[in-house]
Amino acid sequence: MPSEFELIARYFARPAKRAVLGVGDDAALLRAAAGAELAVSTDMLVSGTHFGSDAEPRALGHKALAVNLSDMAAMGARPRWALLSIALPRADARWLRGFSAGFLGLARAHQVDLIGGDTTRGPLNVCVTIIGDVPRGRALRRDRARSGDDVWVSGELGNAAIGLAHRQGNVRLKPAEARRCTRVLDRPTPRIALGTALRTIAHAAIDISDGLAADLGHICERSALAAEVWMQQLPRSRVLARLGAAAEPALIAGGDDYELCFTAAVARRADIAALSARLGLRLTRVGRMRRGRGVRLLGPDGPLDARDKRGYDHFG
Amino acid sequence: MPSEFELIARYFARPAKRAVLGVGDDAALLRAAAGAELAVSTDMLVSGTHFGSDAEPRALGHKALAVNLSDMAAMGARPRWALLSIALPRADARWLRGFSAGFLGLARAHQVDLIGGDTTRGPLNVCVTIIGDVPRGRALRRDRARSGDDVWVSGELGNAAIGLAHRQGNVRLKPAEARRCTRVLDRPTPRIALGTALRTIAHAAIDISDGLAADLGHICERSALAAEVWMQQLPRSRVLARLGAAAEPALIAGGDDYELCFTAAVARRADIAALSARLGLRLTRVGRMRRGRGVRLLGPDGPLDARDKRGYDHFG
Repeated sequence: MPSEFELIARYFARPAKRAVLGVGDDAALLRAAAGAELAVSTDMLVSGTHFGSDAEPRALGHKALAVNLSDMAAMGARPRWALLSIALPRADARWLRGFSAGFLGLARAHQVDLIGGDTTRGPLNVCVTIIGDVPRGRALRRDRARSGDDVWVSGELGNAAIGLAHRQGNVRLKPAEARRCTRVLDRPTPRIALGTALRTIAHAAIDISDGLAADLGHICERSALAAEVWMQQLPRSRVLARLGAAAEPALIAGGDDYELCFTAAVARRADIAALSARLGLRLTRVGRMRRGRGVRLLGPDGPLDARDKRGYDHFG
Repeated sequence: MPSEFELIARYFARPAKRAVLGVGDDAALLRAAAGAELAVSTDMLVSGTHFGSDAEPRALGHKALAVNLSDMAAMGARPRWALLSIALPRADARWLRGFSAGFLGLARAHQVDLIGGDTTRGPLNVCVTIIGDVPRGRALRRDRARSGDDVWVSGELGNAAIGLAHRQGNVRLKPAEARRCTRVLDRPTPRIALGTALRTIAHAAIDISDGLAADLGHICERSALAAEVWMQQLPRSRVLARLGAAAEPALIAGGDDYELCFTAAVARRADIAALSARLGLRLTRVGRMRRGRGVRLLGPDGPLDARDKRGYDHFG
């Protein structure tokens, strides 16, 4: 007789359309497309660290996959296959129904097959591995930025951080604003179409999960370059515009928006404008890469000082 | 400044020799060999469920990878790349030194690259994803057994279960016996060389992680066949031989040995004997596949009755 946890595993079982062999053997079997490289990434989300014990299971299922899809977007990879391991204190049917609806709904939307995983008893923990493909040599890496490149970001920054601050009682939003910001926080949209389109346009890319300053800092470090960012150019929603200077830390150090930051040659500005129009997605030029080290934030009155920057770490 | 958990991540960072791009970007990049399929599997090990909170970290690091390598062996795949996610209550240098030594030591022995992962704060949880390759169409699947096939097992069965029973005070072993059995429990040997050699010999295979009866049952179910197993043929160590009938449940339902169970045509017996000699590994014919459903255990006095089988579930 199957255990309750085997029954859970079956809850997630779906035919694998794009795999040689899906769930049910010692391993799944895949074939990479000819001329493709595989991009592989994993994320672990823990109750109490990444989400509250009262997190809505459907949103959590969505987000657990979304943050992994975002890593594929940042590589210019098309996500193909996912593995999902869950530790649960007990087999809770309501929780599982919600979680699997959120996870599998987003998987279906991106034609991602769930091909394996593990289910066990333990403190709530969700570990997802995602595998995608990208034509050889076309992946968007962090170490390929060039001096003189423009720095771009997609969408708007800081909404998720402000949504979290609202939920924690640290900022007061109007109901419509709160709905919008917490939706970005709970159900981020991985920028897959943008990532694959950028393969032939961008030099380097990263997804913004720890805040623009920190994540652009990774591009700088890996590319052995500096970046300057013009604070006034940062794309902000009406909510953040209304909050003014109080929202600046969220713009610079707010994670969880899962937008992309990328660098591209100045000569590609028209291509990027056309891409923005085609995708219906705001793409904003916010700075440039130069020789040196680290990220320099330029406000209307010149560089932000170290004290300002330290304050932003609280949003990291 | 890197957080303590970023420092942990660096503890595990090693150059990826067999990947296009290893740790340090949004995803790792791999190239599959021409004509290869990729085998992918994941396992989550949780403190309090799979191991005690006092588990020796080096053994735990070894075992976390070993159980995943065993899945590769059971598919006839050669393991190539691993991802390791850890949730830890706190950054404990001693624990991490031990764990990484166990994990990376075994990875090195099998030429497996650690290409990614995640480190976070939370109740102790280790999630490993393993990726291997196997020539197209050559993977050892559970659903390919044929009626009339011999059933084989590698090594000896039940040592790990007896080691666990000893540790729990349920059986009394001599010191040398205890050392031997708990070593199998704590540091199982994944049968990689056997698995790859079986690609052209076996029809179906599985690794024995839940006990022979349960795991051979999976082959039966997926191949829509029955199996009969001759209890007296089961390969037992001197310890189990000494314990006699008391050890039978460990032979049939003891997990954690991570030996392979496979089926092959009668015509391949000589090849399997030669393989056993070449690998220096005991391979024992313990039963056969036939039409029908389920696993039938045959003792010296005929089939074991349901009461006996129920007793074995405690070892599952």
